[in-house]
Amino acid sequence: MDLDVIRELAITSDTKILLLVVDGLGGLPHPDSGRSELEAANIPHLDRLAGESICGLTLPVGLGITPGSGPGHLSLFGYDPFKYTVGRGVLEALGIDFNLQPQDVAARGNFCTVDSEGRVTDRRAGRIPTEHCAELCTDLSQILLRDVELFVQPVREHRFLLVLRAEGLWDQLSDTDPQREGVVPPPVKALAPEAEATARLANRFVEQAGQRLNGRQPANMLLLRGFAKHPQMPSMADVSKLRAGAIAVYPMYRGLAKLVGMTMLPTGATLQDELATLRERWEEFDFFFVHYKRTDSAGEDGDFEAKMAALEEVDAIIPDLCDLEPDVLMVAGDHSTPSVLRSHSWHPVPFLLRSRWAAPDRLPAFNERTCREGSLGLFPATEVLPLAMAHAKRLTKYGA
Amino acid sequence: MDLDVIRELAITSDTKILLLVVDGLGGLPHPDSGRSELEAANIPHLDRLAGESICGLTLPVGLGITPGSGPGHLSLFGYDPFKYTVGRGVLEALGIDFNLQPQDVAARGNFCTVDSEGRVTDRRAGRIPTEHCAELCTDLSQILLRDVELFVQPVREHRFLLVLRAEGLWDQLSDTDPQREGVVPPPVKALAPEAEATARLANRFVEQAGQRLNGRQPANMLLLRGFAKHPQMPSMADVSKLRAGAIAVYPMYRGLAKLVGMTMLPTGATLQDELATLRERWEEFDFFFVHYKRTDSAGEDGDFEAKMAALEEVDAIIPDLCDLEPDVLMVAGDHSTPSVLRSHSWHPVPFLLRSRWAAPDRLPAFNERTCREGSLGLFPATEVLPLAMAHAKRLTKYGA
Repeated sequence: MDLDVIRELAITSDTKILLLVVDGLGGLPHPDSGRSELEAANIPHLDRLAGESICGLTLPVGLGITPGSGPGHLSLFGYDPFKYTVGRGVLEALGIDFNLQPQDVAARGNFCTVDSEGRVTDRRAGRIPTEHCAELCTDLSQILLRDVELFVQPVREHRFLLVLRAEGLWDQLSDTDPQREGVVPPPVKALAPEAEATARLANRFVEQAGQRLNGRQPANMLLLRGFAKHPQMPSMADVSKLRAGAIAVYPMYRGLAKLVGMTMLPTGATLQDELATLRERWEEFDFFFVHYKRTDSAGEDGDFEAKMAALEEVDAIIPDLCDLEPDVLMVAGDHSTPSVLRSHSWHPVPFLLRSRWAAPDRLPAFNERTCREGSLGLFPATEVLPLAMAHAKRLTKYGA
Repeated sequence: MDLDVIRELAITSDTKILLLVVDGLGGLPHPDSGRSELEAANIPHLDRLAGESICGLTLPVGLGITPGSGPGHLSLFGYDPFKYTVGRGVLEALGIDFNLQPQDVAARGNFCTVDSEGRVTDRRAGRIPTEHCAELCTDLSQILLRDVELFVQPVREHRFLLVLRAEGLWDQLSDTDPQREGVVPPPVKALAPEAEATARLANRFVEQAGQRLNGRQPANMLLLRGFAKHPQMPSMADVSKLRAGAIAVYPMYRGLAKLVGMTMLPTGATLQDELATLRERWEEFDFFFVHYKRTDSAGEDGDFEAKMAALEEVDAIIPDLCDLEPDVLMVAGDHSTPSVLRSHSWHPVPFLLRSRWAAPDRLPAFNERTCREGSLGLFPATEVLPLAMAHAKRLTKYGA
């Protein structure tokens, strides 16, 4: 639904909406058992909740389109993923609370390992500890580029944020991250004529950084991707009149929430920490976005059993979520991450919504196969927000 | 999905996609048995294949909209049928390898039979042999129109192609084919003021042709429709990075394939010939479009049993298609042609896609009724291409 329509119809209420995003929720059958991660896992609470809910499969972007985390989440928050695009660099900046300015160009960085020929041998430098990453960032922050202010800040493990600050910078820049090993990282290329000067600046940074990192295995080089400036987006508070709080362990997801104007609620490193934060802050917000990451990580690792275990960890807190008595409780995914594919995928994502104003579909379980029989069918993820608001009695009538 | 998005995300791979288009695939229940052609036919291989596939019903253009062969096919190739329109005349020209120039206006012609009052008594002139059609075309090619080059070329049976070549011609012209018998064909009318001169030219041609055909029953007159110039369309190779080969017996379908930049593979007159061509050329292409016509012809003839037999002919080659081990195998229709309607229809069309990356819907059979229970539900035919590319791992992630 168009955000302008939602803005026009949104009304305030004292109802509460809880959106649990299980990252990479959907899966595919294991070739041996013919059962997906959700089908194979022991998730009695999710199964029962599905029976009390309306269910369906969300399409994050479109049939056949595999979403990145940005479009996957923005869709669930109601934003058309084609209209609102967010560069990776911006997401990383938001996630570490970097105060990005309108003139800044941000990039996501990876420390990596290269061989003596400069070929990438490990795109993640063995996932160096965050502390080591921080030391390297402090060093690289000393690099001087004329007329440009430079920020290099650690994110987590091998990941860091690069921000170039000056007037007249452009973000139409190609990545140096080749996305595979065995090749020499290419230089930054301008993707539009006006970005030539910014490309030269970025390459000067890469060159000097390479000199400073030389010999410091495993992190003896860096890769940059997702050069981007801060996008203009309407805030969720403005669109939906919802006071929205976000609870997420990983920076990028906090970044996404911040981008749409949610309040980031500090929390710990586990799902139990997130649950505790949710309970503590329950009275303060109308809408909660709770993000759970391990399902996606396990899927990307191709670890079917670990993804099952992660789903079971989520299942265990379902009764706690129900105890908070949200007016609308939703379990969704930003995309599928089938273990058999070891990556994000295009497959539609199981979804449930429980509300006293929704006649339950009475499905016997919560998985890819049952949800396709749900009353919501296959539907665009951008419809999740209006559906939630409707069931929370937060949308007035359209037209006389 | 927008072709620009597909273009942005398309990546190359060594996977193969096979799209079998069964023309006019969908049907309606026979009033006696209550079973559609697909339900009544003995199609064990298609039924089993459906069980191993994801299924749905494609909407070629929209609910309630009956597609011509052009939009029906262009949708399946990923092209928005409202954005990319192709006149019938252009299709006929492409199908006989006529080298259409940008300034040309082409029209599809039928030789027909008229009575002494000039009323059409047979729109197809008893389907005269192609050889006879060719003789008549040679004769009509002698017609002289000042400042205009003229081409009249046989297509097949009673069908021919008329091309007017001159600068300043326009194609906003009405048909002379009344689409029914018992009436006098109307003159060509300009549908826009700038097309007045071209309309006069076309009518001069019709008048002179009528004089030459007079007395030569059954082909004693002609009908023109689908005046059109060559449209501008992005090529499939550019959009999808697929090397696409087309195998079709009838000229118009080869023309459609050529229009989107597919390579036309010469083949014989039967489905077995098409299969042989497919096998011979299997290594050369990434995407194959194989067209089967008899289902549509039988449906248009209102011959329920002949359509069943045609479906059974298709069914018999399914094991051969599977033996080629395409990474993505699809069976689709460009539209429905229910025998009980004796024409193309608006009904959504059964569709199946088999891939190791698609969790099968386990449907018991392949027909209109089962496919609506498939996981793809009712979906736009324009999504077939991105779905196929996704399952062939030929689309990268959208967004960070």
